[in-house]
Amino acid sequence: MRSCDGTTAEEASSRQGKGTDQILEAHAMRKGDLLSKAVEHIDIKAFDSTPIMEGFGNMAFQARNLARAARIYDEMIVDEGCTIILCLSGSLFSAGIKGIVYDLVRHDMVDVIVASGAIIVDQDFFEALGARHYQGTSVIDDEKLRRLGIDRIYDTFIDENELRECDMIVAKIAEGLPPRPYSSREFIVEMGRYLSENEQNPHSVVLESYRKGVPIFVPALSDSSAGFGLVYHQNERGENPKVTIDSVRDFLELTRIKTLAKETGLVMIGGGVPKNFAQDVTVAANVLGEKVNMHKYAVQVTVADERDGSLSGSTLSEAHSWGKVDRSLAQMVFCEATIAFPLMASYVYHSGRWRGRTPRNYNEALSKVVG
Amino acid sequence: MRSCDGTTAEEASSRQGKGTDQILEAHAMRKGDLLSKAVEHIDIKAFDSTPIMEGFGNMAFQARNLARAARIYDEMIVDEGCTIILCLSGSLFSAGIKGIVYDLVRHDMVDVIVASGAIIVDQDFFEALGARHYQGTSVIDDEKLRRLGIDRIYDTFIDENELRECDMIVAKIAEGLPPRPYSSREFIVEMGRYLSENEQNPHSVVLESYRKGVPIFVPALSDSSAGFGLVYHQNERGENPKVTIDSVRDFLELTRIKTLAKETGLVMIGGGVPKNFAQDVTVAANVLGEKVNMHKYAVQVTVADERDGSLSGSTLSEAHSWGKVDRSLAQMVFCEATIAFPLMASYVYHSGRWRGRTPRNYNEALSKVVG
Amino acid sequence: MRSCDGTTAEEASSRQGKGTDQILEAHAMRKGDLLSKAVEHIDIKAFDSTPIMEGFGNMAFQARNLARAARIYDEMIVDEGCTIILCLSGSLFSAGIKGIVYDLVRHDMVDVIVASGAIIVDQDFFEALGARHYQGTSVIDDEKLRRLGIDRIYDTFIDENELRECDMIVAKIAEGLPPRPYSSREFIVEMGRYLSENEQNPHSVVLESYRKGVPIFVPALSDSSAGFGLVYHQNERGENPKVTIDSVRDFLELTRIKTLAKETGLVMIGGGVPKNFAQDVTVAANVLGEKVNMHKYAVQVTVADERDGSLSGSTLSEAHSWGKVDRSLAQMVFCEATIAFPLMASYVYHSGRWRGRTPRNYNEALSKVVG
Amino acid sequence: MRSCDGTTAEEASSRQGKGTDQILEAHAMRKGDLLSKAVEHIDIKAFDSTPIMEGFGNMAFQARNLARAARIYDEMIVDEGCTIILCLSGSLFSAGIKGIVYDLVRHDMVDVIVASGAIIVDQDFFEALGARHYQGTSVIDDEKLRRLGIDRIYDTFIDENELRECDMIVAKIAEGLPPRPYSSREFIVEMGRYLSENEQNPHSVVLESYRKGVPIFVPALSDSSAGFGLVYHQNERGENPKVTIDSVRDFLELTRIKTLAKETGLVMIGGGVPKNFAQDVTVAANVLGEKVNMHKYAVQVTVADERDGSLSGSTLSEAHSWGKVDRSLAQMVFCEATIAFPLMASYVYHSGRWRGRTPRNYNEALSKVVG
Repeated sequence: MRSCDGTTAEEASSRQGKGTDQILEAHAMRKGDLLSKAVEHIDIKAFDSTPIMEGFGNMAFQARNLARAARIYDEMIVDEGCTIILCLSGSLFSAGIKGIVYDLVRHDMVDVIVASGAIIVDQDFFEALGARHYQGTSVIDDEKLRRLGIDRIYDTFIDENELRECDMIVAKIAEGLPPRPYSSREFIVEMGRYLSENEQNPHSVVLESYRKGVPIFVPALSDSSAGFGLVYHQNERGENPKVTIDSVRDFLELTRIKTLAKETGLVMIGGGVPKNFAQDVTVAANVLGEKVNMHKYAVQVTVADERDGSLSGSTLSEAHSWGKVDRSLAQMVFCEATIAFPLMASYVYHSGRWRGRTPRNYNEALSKVVG
Repeated sequence: MRSCDGTTAEEASSRQGKGTDQILEAHAMRKGDLLSKAVEHIDIKAFDSTPIMEGFGNMAFQARNLARAARIYDEMIVDEGCTIILCLSGSLFSAGIKGIVYDLVRHDMVDVIVASGAIIVDQDFFEALGARHYQGTSVIDDEKLRRLGIDRIYDTFIDENELRECDMIVAKIAEGLPPRPYSSREFIVEMGRYLSENEQNPHSVVLESYRKGVPIFVPALSDSSAGFGLVYHQNERGENPKVTIDSVRDFLELTRIKTLAKETGLVMIGGGVPKNFAQDVTVAANVLGEKVNMHKYAVQVTVADERDGSLSGSTLSEAHSWGKVDRSLAQMVFCEATIAFPLMASYVYHSGRWRGRTPRNYNEALSKVVG
Repeated sequence: MRSCDGTTAEEASSRQGKGTDQILEAHAMRKGDLLSKAVEHIDIKAFDSTPIMEGFGNMAFQARNLARAARIYDEMIVDEGCTIILCLSGSLFSAGIKGIVYDLVRHDMVDVIVASGAIIVDQDFFEALGARHYQGTSVIDDEKLRRLGIDRIYDTFIDENELRECDMIVAKIAEGLPPRPYSSREFIVEMGRYLSENEQNPHSVVLESYRKGVPIFVPALSDSSAGFGLVYHQNERGENPKVTIDSVRDFLELTRIKTLAKETGLVMIGGGVPKNFAQDVTVAANVLGEKVNMHKYAVQVTVADERDGSLSGSTLSEAHSWGKVDRSLAQMVFCEATIAFPLMASYVYHSGRWRGRTPRNYNEALSKVVG
Repeated sequence: MRSCDGTTAEEASSRQGKGTDQILEAHAMRKGDLLSKAVEHIDIKAFDSTPIMEGFGNMAFQARNLARAARIYDEMIVDEGCTIILCLSGSLFSAGIKGIVYDLVRHDMVDVIVASGAIIVDQDFFEALGARHYQGTSVIDDEKLRRLGIDRIYDTFIDENELRECDMIVAKIAEGLPPRPYSSREFIVEMGRYLSENEQNPHSVVLESYRKGVPIFVPALSDSSAGFGLVYHQNERGENPKVTIDSVRDFLELTRIKTLAKETGLVMIGGGVPKNFAQDVTVAANVLGEKVNMHKYAVQVTVADERDGSLSGSTLSEAHSWGKVDRSLAQMVFCEATIAFPLMASYVYHSGRWRGRTPRNYNEALSKVVG
């Protein structure tokens, strides 16, 4: 059997499902055996999804929705007045999605990122320090993993010790900064600066965004490995002045961007806080007395649905009632991100229409407009 | 904006979502406008998903599961002793999946089909008669559709009149047969024979399966357009002898195939009756005193999950407890079929390992072993 | 800790989740230990959900949908012209739902049942013969279960040997019948007759429906324990005349009922073939030249959704486009059935408006109108 | 027909689904008509779910899981050493859940709350100011709603003007505070103080928690109506000192609580940031050199699942691998919250074992231990 990853099917099956457990027992569960096959980030440049997406566009259901979402994203890129905000939620980078976002930033296909702390710190910054995520299995005794210091995300494994090192580097970065309130964006800029000076793995969204001036917002930054490092920092400081993370400042900064940009488009992978936060800036601008348009474009890839009333699965039409999203160029795609996002991003990459697109460098702009 | 389907993005957006409603009102909802853009079946020969799938295999979550499922399917093909049973459930062919199954049958990558009646009769046979499915929208007033005689499946439209013609051709076929109990397979063979003599659209799974001797089982045949035709037939016959559809005979025939085949592999798209029916034959063979192996390979693409205890989303490991499926070469893929199945099938097609594979022609074998 | 089931919390936790595995190992996995705590059917008479449902009706999301569905069901009961068709799909009876349906039949709150074979044969008839389903766990080694002859449905266990006995009794019933095509309904009447003569557990829907003349349709009957018994029967018969199951006859019979009834209401628990089959009869009546109304009422409890285009999760509004269901008194409830159905049924039971409702006894009517 | 809400079934059906649209057109979409039926919060004291839950405990699937989750919550209450942390995510209070949490706080069944900003500010604080949420429909033209200034959450409506007033009161509260970094908890204490002095609707979780000293953490506070008010505040302040919200301080405070408490139990309704944040404190305590136990108890009610690898649907067993949650007294319930949470909370309320439980007043404790 031809194997995608250089192993035989038998080996592959042993590595997954029940096979794994047996092997684990046989090997007395050595940590190194469980952390042996690293997750590789998919390379959207290495394949061209255009013919598939063209086929999908002529079908129905989610294939058709995915094709339309890709076309809308492509249209955002060609609309010179449009600033593109990428929202990321869920354990995307540990699953091999990091490479996509890296390429989108590198090739000026994204101007702003709003993400969960796990993606930016526990996963991107973590790998930039030299650590990796590993292919594992979801069918395993979690107590045994705990004893070995292995953290599990569905079917992937992480070395808890490496995560702790990541926490402490965040603490060290905070220690080196003048004590004052920072937006998460400002703090992540400092993380990017650290990486630029201590490079281990240059394939990092935090680093590349630092270089390109792409702002990264993490509205719930303390809910991540950064939180552990920052808690450590504040605890050490005791009554002394300390670095604090002011999420209001994040909101203010993103609202400034909305005001600066003529039009905006949202590319949302997953829902959660990033989706809500980015959608809300149209209203926030209003509250500040600025007259701005709704987000002109919006696509979301998610497995959530609207039936429990939660924001993650709420339709873009619902967001329209709030005055947040224009619905004519909006598309929901109900599909898991590891499958849908590579297809969508490869399509947009190979359209090549991003070539010559003007980089925004909003980090520079923000340093001027925010007090 | 580059468009996948030859329309501009504006046109595309008008055709979907809210735009549609407005256009509909403007055009006073003419039926022809709503049935203007036919669903095209995706062609797995026209693109090669291999590099994508190799990338997916190195990732996590469903991308990785999909890659493994494709590899297992490829392994079934290369295992000369393995008979491949394709189970189909959900409105797959109306959504553009028919072309895939056509190619799988044509290139000897499938030996037996177990499907819902809607797929085989309302969708495949229907299109073979010259009718089409149309791209529509899920956001529309269904009462207006009803008045226009348009049936909706999520975001696709069907001309109810054409479906009625399809019903009546089934009735006509029944009328021409000697009155006795038929398995659904036997009746579908007669539908294939009808198509071979009255060909309108040769791109038909019923027709191609007829030519290749690939049996098609529809355990709940009356739950389809065939049901309407057959009810009409039986009603017309009154007290006279009539064609009946004996689903027990289906089960017996499929059990015979299990006994004849050395090993079996299941490729399941969706769940429902086809999944259960095909899994059950290992137990049925047992009940008949035959000693057979569990299904050696099994992959399923579905959006259902196990949490409501229903069969559609039950894991292949659960099926193992019943002695139906060997779990070492089994893989669930939680993804909507219109996206996952084209990727999986293109991978297996382009591996090319099906070349030279021996066709089974189980229809011929069954005509000998079943009384 | 107060315990719902008479065990301590520690025992309860041991019986579920990881605890189970440890106990199993300790006891060397004795079958009797795994089949020790039978599932008990919930008794809708023993609690009154009315105040809860009234509260739900004033809320939002699925609570409100559930309350409205219950009110619509209650309205069906009070509408003297309305025949109530209950559709059942999924492993409902093994999960403790049987008692509800038993009470609905007993108290004239249901006139027709359309169900999956598993529910009617593997679960209801099975328990009527004295067997039981057992509380188990979904976290267990399925290979060990297989070796012990224990079948698993999510978190419940079944003794495979008892299922085999059930199969053989079906075969025996078939053996005693004049060989001819039977509708599934006719065959299930014979199963009811068998139970009335060989009663072991009177708490059976098949038996009670037999007594009340409530027809039970199983459009895919061979896809169940009955299939095993009937395959055995047909195999034994060889070339001799045999009992066959004609699902077209089912469709014809259910269409007759639609024609006889002035109005119809659908109460659907789960989707699948029963949902489609029951909805289709309005169209089938049309095909036979009868003028009938759409189903006037329709409620469905399901966890499926519409996004993959499959029938199970398709909205009742979509069914309206097909002319099957009137949408003004229709309600989807997106909730797992073991939680939603007891609440809905208890509400309707305690409204008491079923008292004095005229039993339909469609079995008797069908014996007159079907040839 | 008996109606739960005092309306006839016809009226109810008119108010929902398609009926609504027609009425809206007829009335030319007057805002007052759409905001006429307020959502009422369910009262867990008004019905006793104990007999239902006892029945559920003897069943299978999610009914059984829900019963076990309720028993585990009840056990947390009786474990005097256990501090109970309630995590809330999704649009729960707008859907009628607020009354439950109010009663849990009032009766000492919850010691700490971690929630989304929408629940605490846009919904609870909003209603405390006298505003309401309204029963609407999910099938409506969102553009028309936008023009009327009505925001939609699935099937509920909100007056956007009232939300703007809520924003401005938050801004006013910020204006009155000494400028410095605040934890979200500290700021919400000030919101409670405001309500205690400007009471309009005393049925408020923010107010009752203020009175009982129950800390409320909102790790992403700016992602809410509070965000709008605080952005306004910061923008007005310009270069002057301002109120900032330091989410690191939240994390530090919650970690202090974990250290102070002997044992902890998590009651999680929904997933998202609150779930992750609360789980993480066991690790955070570790990072600070404190030796603490994993959360001893954990239950989660959610519709998310684990298959996309996101945190919201990740199993409690997965959390165990991270050393966050002990799994022996953990239970996932896969059900929508508006149905499951009232049943669970009513069970625990009516067990009455909370009577005499010692209130923790962690707000007071935190004022001493945090610098």
